[in-house]
Amino acid sequence: MCRLVAYLGTPIIVDEIIIKPKNSLVHQSYAAEETESPVNGDGFGIGWYNKDIREEPGIYKSIFPAWNDQNLLNNASFIQTSCFLAHVRAATVGGVSMENAHPFNFNQYLMMHNGGILDFDKIKYDLVKLLDPDAFLWIQGQTDTQYILALFMTNARKLDLKKTTSAEKLVACFNKTFKDIEQLKKRNGVHAPAIYNIVLTDGYRMIATRYSTDPENEERTLHYAEKMSCTVCEKGILKMGEPCEKRTATLISSEMLSEDPERWKEIPQNHLIFIDKNLEVSLFKLD
Amino acid sequence: MCRLVAYLGTPIIVDEIIIKPKNSLVHQSYAAEETESPVNGDGFGIGWYNKDIREEPGIYKSIFPAWNDQNLLNNASFIQTSCFLAHVRAATVGGVSMENAHPFNFNQYLMMHNGGILDFDKIKYDLVKLLDPDAFLWIQGQTDTQYILALFMTNARKLDLKKTTSAEKLVACFNKTFKDIEQLKKRNGVHAPAIYNIVLTDGYRMIATRYSTDPENEERTLHYAEKMSCTVCEKGILKMGEPCEKRTATLISSEMLSEDPERWKEIPQNHLIFIDKNLEVSLFKLD
Amino acid sequence: MCRLVAYLGTPIIVDEIIIKPKNSLVHQSYAAEETESPVNGDGFGIGWYNKDIREEPGIYKSIFPAWNDQNLLNNASFIQTSCFLAHVRAATVGGVSMENAHPFNFNQYLMMHNGGILDFDKIKYDLVKLLDPDAFLWIQGQTDTQYILALFMTNARKLDLKKTTSAEKLVACFNKTFKDIEQLKKRNGVHAPAIYNIVLTDGYRMIATRYSTDPENEERTLHYAEKMSCTVCEKGILKMGEPCEKRTATLISSEMLSEDPERWKEIPQNHLIFIDKNLEVSLFKLD
Amino acid sequence: MCRLVAYLGTPIIVDEIIIKPKNSLVHQSYAAEETESPVNGDGFGIGWYNKDIREEPGIYKSIFPAWNDQNLLNNASFIQTSCFLAHVRAATVGGVSMENAHPFNFNQYLMMHNGGILDFDKIKYDLVKLLDPDAFLWIQGQTDTQYILALFMTNARKLDLKKTTSAEKLVACFNKTFKDIEQLKKRNGVHAPAIYNIVLTDGYRMIATRYSTDPENEERTLHYAEKMSCTVCEKGILKMGEPCEKRTATLISSEMLSEDPERWKEIPQNHLIFIDKNLEVSLFKLD
Repeated sequence: MCRLVAYLGTPIIVDEIIIKPKNSLVHQSYAAEETESPVNGDGFGIGWYNKDIREEPGIYKSIFPAWNDQNLLNNASFIQTSCFLAHVRAATVGGVSMENAHPFNFNQYLMMHNGGILDFDKIKYDLVKLLDPDAFLWIQGQTDTQYILALFMTNARKLDLKKTTSAEKLVACFNKTFKDIEQLKKRNGVHAPAIYNIVLTDGYRMIATRYSTDPENEERTLHYAEKMSCTVCEKGILKMGEPCEKRTATLISSEMLSEDPERWKEIPQNHLIFIDKNLEVSLFKLD
Repeated sequence: MCRLVAYLGTPIIVDEIIIKPKNSLVHQSYAAEETESPVNGDGFGIGWYNKDIREEPGIYKSIFPAWNDQNLLNNASFIQTSCFLAHVRAATVGGVSMENAHPFNFNQYLMMHNGGILDFDKIKYDLVKLLDPDAFLWIQGQTDTQYILALFMTNARKLDLKKTTSAEKLVACFNKTFKDIEQLKKRNGVHAPAIYNIVLTDGYRMIATRYSTDPENEERTLHYAEKMSCTVCEKGILKMGEPCEKRTATLISSEMLSEDPERWKEIPQNHLIFIDKNLEVSLFKLD
Repeated sequence: MCRLVAYLGTPIIVDEIIIKPKNSLVHQSYAAEETESPVNGDGFGIGWYNKDIREEPGIYKSIFPAWNDQNLLNNASFIQTSCFLAHVRAATVGGVSMENAHPFNFNQYLMMHNGGILDFDKIKYDLVKLLDPDAFLWIQGQTDTQYILALFMTNARKLDLKKTTSAEKLVACFNKTFKDIEQLKKRNGVHAPAIYNIVLTDGYRMIATRYSTDPENEERTLHYAEKMSCTVCEKGILKMGEPCEKRTATLISSEMLSEDPERWKEIPQNHLIFIDKNLEVSLFKLD
Repeated sequence: MCRLVAYLGTPIIVDEIIIKPKNSLVHQSYAAEETESPVNGDGFGIGWYNKDIREEPGIYKSIFPAWNDQNLLNNASFIQTSCFLAHVRAATVGGVSMENAHPFNFNQYLMMHNGGILDFDKIKYDLVKLLDPDAFLWIQGQTDTQYILALFMTNARKLDLKKTTSAEKLVACFNKTFKDIEQLKKRNGVHAPAIYNIVLTDGYRMIATRYSTDPENEERTLHYAEKMSCTVCEKGILKMGEPCEKRTATLISSEMLSEDPERWKEIPQNHLIFIDKNLEVSLFKLD
């Protein structure tokens, strides 16, 4: 059961979100609150953009628990960015290695995942055949997540998605990807569910899915807080307020980071949100 | 809040004790049960003896959490020994490093510790002056535990302890060591407690203290199971029975490893147990 | 350019071979002598057998350089075995991770490799299609070596190899494996060479290939020392002598470990040696 | 034998200096050229300043060799700074740990060291007594370097050095520190040399010593390139030219980074250079 947080908005120093709040992502690495298994100590990763330097993101990953990663604790206060993804891992499929740590990077894209394809090994071999060779070669680890992203990228080519593609087309690509996997499961007699709490970004826009093939029994949370300002006050309280010129952002998070539950909305099960460059959120139903 | 387990008896493969039982030490690394802070993910260590090869112990340490340390999981089934100490760490004083991982090795001795000297930094500089130079040079990390062991070894020389020394003399050495530290605390205005759940062995005999300078408010557990046989049955149940010729051992553990609570006794607060070569346990009161 | 050593014979403590000799494998991790690139610091691995405990080998791997891996240096003197493989890595294909460290383990087998398939990425996707699904699923890293072993195991099933199969059948399986890869290379326009200095064992018998598709330009060495006794004298000199009852072994090594060059023979280019249970060596030509 | 590089000047992206040049610091981690022992694979560290964020430096350290540290290779292109120190280590005193990796940070200062106090263990215990308690507590590892810096900071207090202190006072403080250590060596019968190629900075100004107590037999190099512009052209050639408005810097380096030897001067043995805020270099003789 992993935990994740994503930020899009006015440039911020990342420790404001992932370290300083009481229920920060680093706190969730040893004591997550909105899940039954509190420990997410199997590595960590953060990806962020500085478009002045280059289109592709910077990435810092670690195979140590986030809570005692000195490099993270020392340097999160030096990373200033308008867009980042961060993830603490509880390993299910794939060992604890740099190659298996989220977020994953494909050209200018970053992607991370909470959930998984149960009984993944039963469809893995057949899934390879659906992939573009270069998407297969891109895979450097053993997680189901990397195969999902490789399939998404293969489908993006098939659906002729471009950089500036519309939200609708992205929704179609997710639908196709999830459907392809269901077909592989059916063909291989897999009845266990597949769960996709996924965040994907190019550094300008962001998309997040909350999807399960067994939605009745699914309890993984995924919240978002739309267009607000946020500041960390003393004692680790993340204060959210009306957006202002200096500070506006939209956040996505497995767990509520502040103690203003009214500021957070849940992405409905089997839906997707799209955040555009103006930080506006649109909601879409997945098939 | 660390967790520890020690074994003295008929040669056993160590995974029988630290991996296979439901509430094994590896399980306690992410879900300890007899404490409020369940995570002990800041590294791990095991020390064991094979006196046919040499007097000094073998040691395997790791800065990764025990629960996903592949080397531990693969090889614990290849270590067969009549005496071992094992420890999972929740770092308090000193960073997560090999140098700070328990158990610590001084000549043929191994020592590990659950507890700590609160406000240790206030007495650390003065404590150095009490140490024999070679005991100071032996210290390779930053934990209070290493300073305690260095002081114990210095006092052992002063009290003229030999390899075959009596339990009484060892008790005196612990009393002197704890008293020395109290004097340093007093001199430096430290009122916070010091807690010493310590296990020490030379591979033949073993000693374990349960001591706090604030015993009323101390809740760290330390159990032992005297002279019994133990086998792990299916489903991870550690079965303890009457000692038999083929299998007899005395165990010390922060947490009960089996579901026979009647087999486990608690070391009374501010007492020490001594286990001799015949696995007989003697109880001593500490000053 | 990796370095490797393998041992089959009377039980020995592994530090006698991989640490104590002047030109030990650990020495070769930072200063290999029979190659132009002396550093093999991208991780390390050792696999060994204790058939009294189980058929499958124990494995210790590390992503740190061997020369400063404290666990290796402390514990190599506690591993006693009649058969081991050890490998220091200079990463070419695949990042530095536990998953990519040699030797690799498939059921009771261990395998390690010095060499590589150049331009491996150009045939990787097609190679998957040749693999049995369970052989593909066995792959946990990204090295060409794991794909070669998976193909070998697939071919072993096709050729109906059993545990007690003859050397001739093993030779046929290697020939088929190398030929399959050449066909993939041809089909994908790959002209770069493939080099296979490979050691494979089941803990009882051992096989080592020295093979290149461009033998004229190949300079990777692979030596063996047949049926001799070996002891390390003071100053790190590995002394080899006539086999005696107490100590007899056959060794394979990228570099000569002793200063008796007459004790070492080179496996001829594009040949294979087979070591049987009596430590007798047979030489075979590869196609 | 460690290798180091330091930069003071117009903000630069650090990979321009430590990764891109042919003989970059990362290259020196496995193939240093101006020394007999080419491998510096025992960890790595970089410290840099962003005074807009805070006075204290950011630090990234690693216990892996620099040449395969993915985090370094990915992110050095995201660190932009007007002042940094970087160091690759070949461990002598103190194990390979984060705590022992250079550069070391004391308040707003950074310090790194190439050299060492031979037979350091013979004076270590006595050296503690010379330290201010808070300087002793600052030490988190086991290297001689940390003890030297702790003594320097103690002496800085004694000599009443301020933030804006003059070069002359800094020279006096180094002289006193080196002299204190010589007295300890004499008192403890240590005749082996002490070598101090040290760089110290507060992010605005920089100081570098090249000092040995046995200068006749000392061959550690330490170069500097004063007030020039530098750019990396294709093929890894670091081009140095006249300083210009957009790009001016002064560099210190164990090895020449460019192929313009005339741009590099050697700090004379037992001398020190001071670089002021205008990047002007002054040379001082040490006692």
